Amino acid sequence: MPDLSVKRFRYVSASDAVNITLNSFDAPPRRIKIVSIDKAFNEILAENIVVKDDVPPHNVSHFDGYAVDFRDLRDASPSNPVHLRVIGSVFPGDDEVPEIGSGEACYVATGAFIPRNANTIVPVEAVNLIDENVIEVRFPPKIGDHIISRGSDLRGGEVVFKIGRVLRAFDVGLLAFLGFEAVRVFVKPKIGVLSSGDELVSSRFTSHSLMLSYLIRRFCGCPVDLGVVRDDRSEIVDVIRKGLKGTDCIMTIGGCSRGVKDLLPDAVLSLSDSNMVLRGLKRVPGRQTSFAVVGGKPVLMLPGLCQSMVVGFYTLGVPIIKKLGGITSQLLFKFKAKVVEDFNASFMPPFERVFFVKLLGFNDLPLVHLVTGPSMHRSVLIKSNGFTVIPPFKINIKRGEIIEVTLF
Amino acid sequence: MPDLSVKRFRYVSASDAVNITLNSFDAPPRRIKIVSIDKAFNEILAENIVVKDDVPPHNVSHFDGYAVDFRDLRDASPSNPVHLRVIGSVFPGDDEVPEIGSGEACYVATGAFIPRNANTIVPVEAVNLIDENVIEVRFPPKIGDHIISRGSDLRGGEVVFKIGRVLRAFDVGLLAFLGFEAVRVFVKPKIGVLSSGDELVSSRFTSHSLMLSYLIRRFCGCPVDLGVVRDDRSEIVDVIRKGLKGTDCIMTIGGCSRGVKDLLPDAVLSLSDSNMVLRGLKRVPGRQTSFAVVGGKPVLMLPGLCQSMVVGFYTLGVPIIKKLGGITSQLLFKFKAKVVEDFNASFMPPFERVFFVKLLGFNDLPLVHLVTGPSMHRSVLIKSNGFTVIPPFKINIKRGEIIEVTLF
Repeated sequence: MPDLSVKRFRYVSASDAVNITLNSFDAPPRRIKIVSIDKAFNEILAENIVVKDDVPPHNVSHFDGYAVDFRDLRDASPSNPVHLRVIGSVFPGDDEVPEIGSGEACYVATGAFIPRNANTIVPVEAVNLIDENVIEVRFPPKIGDHIISRGSDLRGGEVVFKIGRVLRAFDVGLLAFLGFEAVRVFVKPKIGVLSSGDELVSSRFTSHSLMLSYLIRRFCGCPVDLGVVRDDRSEIVDVIRKGLKGTDCIMTIGGCSRGVKDLLPDAVLSLSDSNMVLRGLKRVPGRQTSFAVVGGKPVLMLPGLCQSMVVGFYTLGVPIIKKLGGITSQLLFKFKAKVVEDFNASFMPPFERVFFVKLLGFNDLPLVHLVTGPSMHRSVLIKSNGFTVIPPFKINIKRGEIIEVTLF
Repeated sequence: MPDLSVKRFRYVSASDAVNITLNSFDAPPRRIKIVSIDKAFNEILAENIVVKDDVPPHNVSHFDGYAVDFRDLRDASPSNPVHLRVIGSVFPGDDEVPEIGSGEACYVATGAFIPRNANTIVPVEAVNLIDENVIEVRFPPKIGDHIISRGSDLRGGEVVFKIGRVLRAFDVGLLAFLGFEAVRVFVKPKIGVLSSGDELVSSRFTSHSLMLSYLIRRFCGCPVDLGVVRDDRSEIVDVIRKGLKGTDCIMTIGGCSRGVKDLLPDAVLSLSDSNMVLRGLKRVPGRQTSFAVVGGKPVLMLPGLCQSMVVGFYTLGVPIIKKLGGITSQLLFKFKAKVVEDFNASFMPPFERVFFVKLLGFNDLPLVHLVTGPSMHRSVLIKSNGFTVIPPFKINIKRGEIIEVTLF
């Protein structure tokens, strides 16, 4: 007969839990590596990026067309077409620019520097070619038309990306454009993933570990598989002690409720230099989520039911990875959406309740359907695109009500 | 002096362009590969996944608690606490379940099968332990409390994922749970990325190629770097002919406007078995976007200015990859947002105009700021989270107006 004693929860609101958790550990000194720019996507920038020179470095043309002095065309009209002599051409990359005189034009390609004495671009679509060297213009342009001025995109000296930015496709493109061939990035925090439970030991792939690993990677952590540990206190102690040596943080799955085989919190507390910071969230699913600091490193204990694990991870796991990784970019997208049906949220004060939602389509606002089912139901997750948090003491959600949705 | 003749555009609305483009080529016979489940994230499923047996396979407990016959507790109250004898325990993975008799309870862990004759679960939090083998209950439960019934998550025989689904973290988790160790997926379509322009030949990394490659990967294509080709018609013909041999599609960057060095459309048309399907979009930036089918394979010609390239890619590149890859999952998220400032969209009928937007925060709806600048401005892209499309003939956007935003 197992020992039926249980450990009490001391539930804390999600927002308090985030603060308590993040204030309970220091981010480790960050290691920096240099990556080639073609490998920099989704990496965490470890330096401020300063633009050296103005972009563009000179005034350039926004169109393929003809650089002119607008004064030559002031009186152009369909009944008074003006002819200009084309004296040459400039293309992007040409450093030497010609000079135009009165009655003259110069062909300019998009992005090319503006010829001297020119102040206006007439797009190719707006001219008639009379012969190889003469264009006809039938409408007066405005001075400055289609000229992009020096430094209007980026100013020399400007800090364009700050430390901690997770580099996106466009960012990498800009870095390449600015001449960077490599960039300094933070080594991503190593997050140990440990599943617990006698029933999991025999399976080759652990469903929850896989899910959690992918989620960790999506939020710029580097998952480290610590395997499965059976429901045995000394084995748990052992694998966590060893696991912490090679990681910056461990996230465990299961074993943190109040059942007979819920040995994680006890085991973690028995490690030397261990401090239980959080024992329970005022949020369901996920209320069993607990957090300890062991030897200065965060240990997040996530519940074993899939929805509970996911809520615990989005509530505390994401902020922990952000802190460990030095990430300043916004990692979660939130938006408002309209609920398509009446819904009765079971009354469970003083807990917030999380519901998973499926985006249905558009009307005025995005429509969502609440996908509900017990916390262990996986079908709920696979049908959903995100989740919503319902405040404590709110019971009914009415059809047409506006809720805030966080995308997965 | 270069030849100044230009090819005319025949602009088509974006929605028509998508239809014309997608109807102009057949998806190639799809190759299938088998991937281990721990490598299946973001892969395109090549088989329908059928659930073999009900999930859960029997009624299971939703909580750590005690399985009871609710009739034993019908009269329980604080003044009439009922004692039950605990006759054993069941845990997840235990196939054998005990049977309870009158006045008896059995400990059940979350996810464990329900003991015979039990019909209700009393959570551990709701009992007092009198001694190791006796619990006290002070409130009557409702019949069926906390029992999750067989097949309530997934039904045996149910098709849980259909061909073409891009597998997410939760999906892979479910597949592992269902016992899959490997899964059949489509080989991702190979998309050749070719930058054109004399001015790009010397750079080690091509900014636009990098951006486009990352975007292709994000939408489940496999980018193949075809390098940079100079503005030379025979070189372009050569590199596209060779490139098409090893790819399912080519996306070119630059050289498709009407300028002197815009040789892409001409070069593509000169290939044997080539058909120009689209020459221009009624959408700016990106209006130069053009599309041909060469030897049955799609060739998307994207403009060279960064914003124009991005718009052309989201408008036509994403649907092309979806068709080539056999992808049925929704790849783009759209939502409504409120604009924070008055904005004058330059009048350019009959063109739609795309504006990039930055999410600012929340009020009632998500707030967005329109990030504007010439199509070659990279700063616009790096500050934005998505874009909005403004219909033709609409000039002014008012502060507080609701627009639809597509996330990058």
